[in-house]
Amino acid sequence: MNVGILTIGNELTSGKIQDTNSAMISRAIYLQGWTLARMMSVGDDFDAISDALRYLLGHVDGLVATGGLGPTADDITTAAIARAFGLELYTDEAVLAHVRAIFENRGLHWTENNAKQAVFPSGARIIANPRGTAAGFALYREGKIIAVIPGVPVEARKMLAEGVIPLFSAAFPDSALQVKSRLFRLTGIAESAVDEAIAGDNLAEAGVSVGFYPNFPENQLVLTVRERSNETADEKLENACKIIEARLGRHIFARDEESLADNIAKIMTAKRLTLSTAESCTGGMIASRITDIPGSSAFFERGAVTYSNASKEALLGVPAEALERYGAVSEETARLMAEGIRRSSGTDLGLAVTGIAGPAGGSEEKPVGTTFIALASADKTVCRHFSFRWDRKRNRTIAAESALLMLWRYLAEDGRDGE
Amino acid sequence: MNVGILTIGNELTSGKIQDTNSAMISRAIYLQGWTLARMMSVGDDFDAISDALRYLLGHVDGLVATGGLGPTADDITTAAIARAFGLELYTDEAVLAHVRAIFENRGLHWTENNAKQAVFPSGARIIANPRGTAAGFALYREGKIIAVIPGVPVEARKMLAEGVIPLFSAAFPDSALQVKSRLFRLTGIAESAVDEAIAGDNLAEAGVSVGFYPNFPENQLVLTVRERSNETADEKLENACKIIEARLGRHIFARDEESLADNIAKIMTAKRLTLSTAESCTGGMIASRITDIPGSSAFFERGAVTYSNASKEALLGVPAEALERYGAVSEETARLMAEGIRRSSGTDLGLAVTGIAGPAGGSEEKPVGTTFIALASADKTVCRHFSFRWDRKRNRTIAAESALLMLWRYLAEDGRDGE
Repeated sequence: MNVGILTIGNELTSGKIQDTNSAMISRAIYLQGWTLARMMSVGDDFDAISDALRYLLGHVDGLVATGGLGPTADDITTAAIARAFGLELYTDEAVLAHVRAIFENRGLHWTENNAKQAVFPSGARIIANPRGTAAGFALYREGKIIAVIPGVPVEARKMLAEGVIPLFSAAFPDSALQVKSRLFRLTGIAESAVDEAIAGDNLAEAGVSVGFYPNFPENQLVLTVRERSNETADEKLENACKIIEARLGRHIFARDEESLADNIAKIMTAKRLTLSTAESCTGGMIASRITDIPGSSAFFERGAVTYSNASKEALLGVPAEALERYGAVSEETARLMAEGIRRSSGTDLGLAVTGIAGPAGGSEEKPVGTTFIALASADKTVCRHFSFRWDRKRNRTIAAESALLMLWRYLAEDGRDGE
Repeated sequence: MNVGILTIGNELTSGKIQDTNSAMISRAIYLQGWTLARMMSVGDDFDAISDALRYLLGHVDGLVATGGLGPTADDITTAAIARAFGLELYTDEAVLAHVRAIFENRGLHWTENNAKQAVFPSGARIIANPRGTAAGFALYREGKIIAVIPGVPVEARKMLAEGVIPLFSAAFPDSALQVKSRLFRLTGIAESAVDEAIAGDNLAEAGVSVGFYPNFPENQLVLTVRERSNETADEKLENACKIIEARLGRHIFARDEESLADNIAKIMTAKRLTLSTAESCTGGMIASRITDIPGSSAFFERGAVTYSNASKEALLGVPAEALERYGAVSEETARLMAEGIRRSSGTDLGLAVTGIAGPAGGSEEKPVGTTFIALASADKTVCRHFSFRWDRKRNRTIAAESALLMLWRYLAEDGRDGE
């Protein structure tokens, strides 16, 4: 079944508000196993609405239209759709009584323009609105179905699930598929290298679609399977996931809704390890991402944002001579920072970052983006040198991400087992 | 001038990602004084792209298409557009060299599929991409202009402003109005109160449109003027800005592209004041927002993320008895934290936050959202008590914002003058 979406409103074509309905509806359509063939937005304009309707109905079996069902003069969707199909308008007395009752219950002043919300094209099937005054409606024309619901997102979401999807399923009963998908969060690998790594696995031929979505600073790989049978869908997805894990396992730091910090928190808690951080260029971003996780107080002891040399001495015990000799941005200082915060806080691990985020502060020898990340444990301190080539904001973001990845790699590969 | 937008990608039609480009582009089009006639989204599909192109070009003079310019097999926008117009494809050697250089500079492994990003339809005018590898292009067909740019939002935004809009203006020179706008970032005032405050000023009658956009945790007020003459536009906008400043001045913490942290940085630097922070529930967010500003090292000395009681004692000198008596989340502890970090770092100001972000940790007496923010200076320590009612993520965000606002108010109203 091919589905289309038409969102209507001057607030969309002027960029005043972000159209979130299209993504919400398209996701619901996708999860039904239907194909979203076209999405369109137009302003509150008779000709544009009727022209868009004609175009879309040339490409889809079912159309979801949202917006323009309110009481004010610029809400013309119902009238425009009726006109496009040559239908009369009528007032539905039951809906009118319902809208009036809502006004009374809420103690709102009734004005006559609200009666517009009880007007429908003849032959329309009413779609109830449990969350607002504007009801929706569906029309069946030439073997196709057109569902019209309000643009208010909380209303649209509920009416889509409870009103529109059931009508579409009833109208096209053979079209529903079982859709399963898995998301992998990847790091340190480019889209082209992913393509190469799985080129020989013929996933598409096996009915598994592979999507790759850069989402700075991570990349996301999504496998999707659509099948008639639930069992076949599960089986195909699991087989494909095994292939992805085998080919790209090292680069996968989280799956589905998990974040990198989630996984770090899980391992830290399971292994009963504790952590402290010392940040220079990232200025608190690492601590902030870790403490974003509920329950992080179980393993996160403290963080120091040591922007000045004095604070690196006072909070981390980095000797002034070392700062002078090697510079605040150096492998030596990063190591001393990680060891210092670990020692002063008494944690199992100390994670430190020092770098030049830019735009100023770079030199020939240490250009903007030069960053050192060190991780200190009881056994050893490891340090990595990065050369980021972005602007300040992204240099900081990728530095924080790289530090968390270093910690995650250590925990996943080298860390001592749970006790 | 009528403009259309075509966003391309299976990630859009599957609802995987929210299309933010359409709103961003439509806003820019609106601000130019042009009319956005149609917005459409289709998947990565030859027939859909070419069919949508034909439809849109029947309704618009200029079309902005985004997405599907990457290196992988599903990126087919360039090929689909070339096919729709019957154009050959060619490789632009200068662009190819540029893409290769980016790979080299970033130390990425070159794979041949990346060469695809240097392929264009014959006759295309290249639109440079200052932020990524995929260049865009423009085609002129039958008196219309089609501009194609990547779907990555930071790249699309820059290329729209620097590449597409100038080409459109040049192609349709008579259609451009002089559009001027000013954005005010507001805090502590609701839309209805703003409406009331400026109700008597007849801004709309004077040709100034007023838009109000909630953008958690701040609100944005945008004045827009569209005039034939540059001078009239400037004059009308300036007059309207004076009215807004007079009516809402107290609530305006930044204008246009400025952030709250920008303004804090400016005042701190001008007054030669220094700052340190002590954060519990915000976990580094305040330090991170401050150090996001280039040059913040001039006034930001250090930050302590004191998650544990031990760290509040060690780094801030908060006595164990106080923590036990009043609790880690209390006015007393907030005051001691602010005074402690100020003293130990030797800065003019100390800013501290302690609170219960949730979901766990709340009690009858101190429910989730309970937050204390203290600001210590040489003269006095002030502390405010907040009761936020959001989820963990937003409680943390609004706590950090409120702390920065408290600092900004102090600097703007009470701080000592520059010396």
